Amino acid sequence: MFSKVFRLVVLGLSLSYVTVNNPVQTSVAFAGIGYVVTYTLIPRLTTSFINVGLKGKDLSKPPPVNEIAESMGAVPAITYLFLMFGLIPFIFFKYLVSFNSLSNDDSISDNYATQYNALANNRLFPHNKLAEYLSAVLCLQSTTMLGFLDDLFDIRWRHKFFLPAIASLPLLIVYYVDFSVTSVVVPAFVSNLPGGEIFLQFINQLIIIGNFIVSKITGLNFSTLNEFVVPRESPKLLDLGFFYYVYLASVSIFAPNSINILAGVNGLEVGQSVILGVVFLVNDFCYLLSPNVSQAAYDSHLFSVIFIIPFLGVSLALLQYNWFPARVFVGDTYCYFSGMVFAIVGILGHFSKTSLLFLVPQIVNFIYSVPQLFNIVPCPRHRLPKFNLDNGLMYPSYGNYREASTFGKLLVRSLEKFGLIKLVRDPSTKEIIQFSNMTIINLSLVWVGPLREDILCLLLLVVQLVIGLSMIAVRHTVGPWLFGYDNLSWGVK
Amino acid sequence: MFSKVFRLVVLGLSLSYVTVNNPVQTSVAFAGIGYVVTYTLIPRLTTSFINVGLKGKDLSKPPPVNEIAESMGAVPAITYLFLMFGLIPFIFFKYLVSFNSLSNDDSISDNYATQYNALANNRLFPHNKLAEYLSAVLCLQSTTMLGFLDDLFDIRWRHKFFLPAIASLPLLIVYYVDFSVTSVVVPAFVSNLPGGEIFLQFINQLIIIGNFIVSKITGLNFSTLNEFVVPRESPKLLDLGFFYYVYLASVSIFAPNSINILAGVNGLEVGQSVILGVVFLVNDFCYLLSPNVSQAAYDSHLFSVIFIIPFLGVSLALLQYNWFPARVFVGDTYCYFSGMVFAIVGILGHFSKTSLLFLVPQIVNFIYSVPQLFNIVPCPRHRLPKFNLDNGLMYPSYGNYREASTFGKLLVRSLEKFGLIKLVRDPSTKEIIQFSNMTIINLSLVWVGPLREDILCLLLLVVQLVIGLSMIAVRHTVGPWLFGYDNLSWGVK
Repeated sequence: MFSKVFRLVVLGLSLSYVTVNNPVQTSVAFAGIGYVVTYTLIPRLTTSFINVGLKGKDLSKPPPVNEIAESMGAVPAITYLFLMFGLIPFIFFKYLVSFNSLSNDDSISDNYATQYNALANNRLFPHNKLAEYLSAVLCLQSTTMLGFLDDLFDIRWRHKFFLPAIASLPLLIVYYVDFSVTSVVVPAFVSNLPGGEIFLQFINQLIIIGNFIVSKITGLNFSTLNEFVVPRESPKLLDLGFFYYVYLASVSIFAPNSINILAGVNGLEVGQSVILGVVFLVNDFCYLLSPNVSQAAYDSHLFSVIFIIPFLGVSLALLQYNWFPARVFVGDTYCYFSGMVFAIVGILGHFSKTSLLFLVPQIVNFIYSVPQLFNIVPCPRHRLPKFNLDNGLMYPSYGNYREASTFGKLLVRSLEKFGLIKLVRDPSTKEIIQFSNMTIINLSLVWVGPLREDILCLLLLVVQLVIGLSMIAVRHTVGPWLFGYDNLSWGVK
Repeated sequence: MFSKVFRLVVLGLSLSYVTVNNPVQTSVAFAGIGYVVTYTLIPRLTTSFINVGLKGKDLSKPPPVNEIAESMGAVPAITYLFLMFGLIPFIFFKYLVSFNSLSNDDSISDNYATQYNALANNRLFPHNKLAEYLSAVLCLQSTTMLGFLDDLFDIRWRHKFFLPAIASLPLLIVYYVDFSVTSVVVPAFVSNLPGGEIFLQFINQLIIIGNFIVSKITGLNFSTLNEFVVPRESPKLLDLGFFYYVYLASVSIFAPNSINILAGVNGLEVGQSVILGVVFLVNDFCYLLSPNVSQAAYDSHLFSVIFIIPFLGVSLALLQYNWFPARVFVGDTYCYFSGMVFAIVGILGHFSKTSLLFLVPQIVNFIYSVPQLFNIVPCPRHRLPKFNLDNGLMYPSYGNYREASTFGKLLVRSLEKFGLIKLVRDPSTKEIIQFSNMTIINLSLVWVGPLREDILCLLLLVVQLVIGLSMIAVRHTVGPWLFGYDNLSWGVK
């Protein structure tokens, strides 16, 4: 009853806010609509999902365990996509109202003349921004579709791993066309190291050769030194050229998959996404509210805000159903979708490196998981913590030590030295029989001791938040000191 | 064996053609790749589709009828979408090679200055064309997703009917900013009719009032008279303004649904789409090969060709599996997908009215079906022809006349007078008990007599082709005579 009233109020407020001609407020309004729609749709759709076999048992609950709907993330994802469609006219409103057709081929050049003049009073319709926006939505939609197909058909790991890269192709092309910033700043200290200068030269040569070959094959020129993210009094730059696109593609592969493997606890997938969204927003508003930030940086972070806020709206609705005790599972659909939101925002916002800082927990978890993911040590079907029926707490789950390769055994034993893994020894023979599965979820249980599922989730989310916020601080304190500049403090408005 | 070699050859040729820097050839190459990929994937995926319940019985086959995979159209559709991603760099290649970043905010105006100069040698990257392209792919992807979800969850009719309109929103926005052609030409004879002039004035006033209200609400100006599709010595124009967008939206609703209801016979859904594709291509090449066609018209039809050719590639592969006796069903996924391809091409190519001419069989079938669709006369669960086990032929299927409303009965009886329906009378009492279901599929069986399924399908496809081709002729013969001009013969290159 209360929730119904609440939803009606949210919906009412949102609808009243939509028409306010301000991108941020409009996206807040759309977030509200998204929240209400998602919250209303999910319970109505669970049965249909279960009927088509999109269902799963929650292994961390006392019996009787009945199956609940799986990959419900499709609901917020699709709601989000349609919201982003609806947002377009509002985002570009100020251009639309005064926009005249450019289609008359006979007068195109005149049109561009007017465009050119119109720039002064900022009335030209920014086709490039629209292209960015569309490519972002397109990329998200492909990812959502792939995620859903994966939930439905269990696509093979090696296939689905690379599909996000194809999905992000339109994004990379728009990036190439609109920005083509392919240079990275080298921390000052590197070149100050003994031999650092020569080392950089060597790397640079390799990159140049690589780019030469690629451009011979493709006919495209990927190298464009560009002051977009770098101040005039430019520090050392390394122009990765083509390899920068390889890097961007791998970001779009990594982000979805990394969220997908930091999962298995009620509310964790959505929870971490919400936290990440908040962290991204905080970072964005650092720029939006800063007095002397370049127009370009301002636009990038406005773009980010416009994509993140509605994402939070639909995610919060899903979180309410997915939080302990979960009434629905989110599925790969949601993990892929949310991961790609952050990848896109980072790539088109030109802060992909910064956004990786926010993903540190996911990165750590991935690196920590590598030995199991690549079967250096045995990897059981499920690595999620073990539920103890007697006290209702979660305990670390274990892999079989005996089946590990020699190198694997060595690795595991050395990890124990640093307290980064828990080994179980045979009481009599004292020989190692098991090792705790290598996820930061299990590790936190190893360190903190058994926890109830929701406490465990909360713990991980708090860690995520703390790391995220401190990374923002690091980015704007250590960063400038390291790189010799900070794009928050330079530039002309 | 042979087919394998054939596919390898196609693939080889295609790959060797891809890099040719000519949009048409490249899309042919991609069509080849699409054909091979689709043809190879379908048999590998049938079981997975069946496992998730995407399967159906073919009611027009002798027993034993075993279930075959349903909504296999998802395979060509998704293949197509990824191909269209891959096409982007090739389509825009000539711009990419010489393109420099526009991102440096400090020098944007300079950039536009260079853009403006660059126009002469046609080197400016056409962001508006990219936006068109992306919005088209986005719209197609949404439609495919909706179609697939429909196959999976059986979305309610009233919901799924309007969803394509939302899916086409990005398309309409791009149309608004790039062309905003909202005026239609009034056939000369209308105004020459007695009172025609006044009538037009009256209509025009209504439209103006309507637009006034809409623009007051939205703040957008939808009315822009534009010479894009009309020669300078302009005949009577009616500027529909906002209502033109309503019309475009309804095209995007109608096209997918109309193909979806002209179905139920092996190979018909894909077959008609292939025929339509061919007809569209013929029309496009009328323009591409004509010496004196305006640049704008040329671009529009080049756009159409680029989207249709790969569509034919993937569709032909599907057709081989869906042709009588069908080994897979295509599902709503394919019908929606293919319908939207034609809608998009028509809308962004500025020949939506012409493309409706090509859809005449679908339109006729829709109008003919209305009495049953809206339950004026009873509509059985399936309206597809009835399979006769004895001679293996298809016979018209029937609806129950007795349950029809009085108006319905009257309608049916009057249709019989024109031989547009077959009524079955009780041998003794001579009173009407049944009427043939109102689809052009049944009607052709009524006229031609029982046919084998594939012959029936062929018949319908031939009709589709003949109508399509003659419509092209009509368009460029009667059209000019009616409207006082033809955009094929006027304009400057």
